[in-house]
Amino acid sequence: MEFNLDDAMAVLARTPATLRAMLKDLPRGWVENNEGPDTWNPYDVVGHLIHGEQTDWVQRAKIILDQGEARPFDPFDRFAQFEESKGKTLEEMLVEFAVLRERNLATLRELNINATQLGKTGQHPALGKVTLKELLATWVAHDLDHTAQIARTMAKQYASEVGPWQAYITILHDRKPKQG
Amino acid sequence: MEFNLDDAMAVLARTPATLRAMLKDLPRGWVENNEGPDTWNPYDVVGHLIHGEQTDWVQRAKIILDQGEARPFDPFDRFAQFEESKGKTLEEMLVEFAVLRERNLATLRELNINATQLGKTGQHPALGKVTLKELLATWVAHDLDHTAQIARTMAKQYASEVGPWQAYITILHDRKPKQG
Repeated sequence: MEFNLDDAMAVLARTPATLRAMLKDLPRGWVENNEGPDTWNPYDVVGHLIHGEQTDWVQRAKIILDQGEARPFDPFDRFAQFEESKGKTLEEMLVEFAVLRERNLATLRELNINATQLGKTGQHPALGKVTLKELLATWVAHDLDHTAQIARTMAKQYASEVGPWQAYITILHDRKPKQG
Repeated sequence: MEFNLDDAMAVLARTPATLRAMLKDLPRGWVENNEGPDTWNPYDVVGHLIHGEQTDWVQRAKIILDQGEARPFDPFDRFAQFEESKGKTLEEMLVEFAVLRERNLATLRELNINATQLGKTGQHPALGKVTLKELLATWVAHDLDHTAQIARTMAKQYASEVGPWQAYITILHDRKPKQG
């Protein structure tokens, strides 16, 4: 598919309700267990998505539109959620994510981005030159990546409980955790 | 996690609402594009889940409880949805899946399965001896596998649109489609 702002926003708008449907009031084991060393549990993932709403996607879009490549993006802290989520319940975080996402989509609508602006470039601290279109497409793919991660992480809690069916449930074999 | 019927049912009960939140009223491209040759699009996946509700999980649980290994399971048709979904809208299928799932969970509750029964065995046509616990754990993992598949398939529609971020969105690199 070619990028289209309406298509992108349709997915972005659905992610909070998707995560709420998946996770709200689930027994704790599903939410607190991860895929192994140096992996995240679903609670961590929601915290990471909140941090992205606060510091990443819309902020970077504005930098591209206002200052282009002259002002490189701030690096994104992939571990911020381990501090920021402290003391919050999952329910609070699901609400927080939904509120932030709705606000950011409203901001995106107000920016009224046109096709020419989608080609505008910014400077990523590690990846170099990127376009606004690529940033917005990545926002969408990043949501879906983490939705899949939550489902995969939950599925793996039953990796041994499925017995011989392990051969058929292919997601159990994706992403062997990093060692150490 | 060790298998627990309440934990399992908590996930099974959430899948219809999860898929509805993800897919309802999405622009068609998200629902109709797949991961490449011999892969399924999200519409196909919902059809596959419906067929499982109609012919697989609860039916096999009853066979184990009533007849044990004496009566092997019927093979599951992994391609039934290509005929059975014909003419149905995605919205109709999301409703159908939710209705069937609710009915099957009600049946499961009525069976009032105890710990001893979870160890009862049945005969899978390809995998051989399996327990009721393994069947029910697989039902859960299978839901989550297909939820992740839908998210992964959608993410891949933007595989080239994300530009250099392709290096960071790791799900874009999972499951290279079969060739031919």
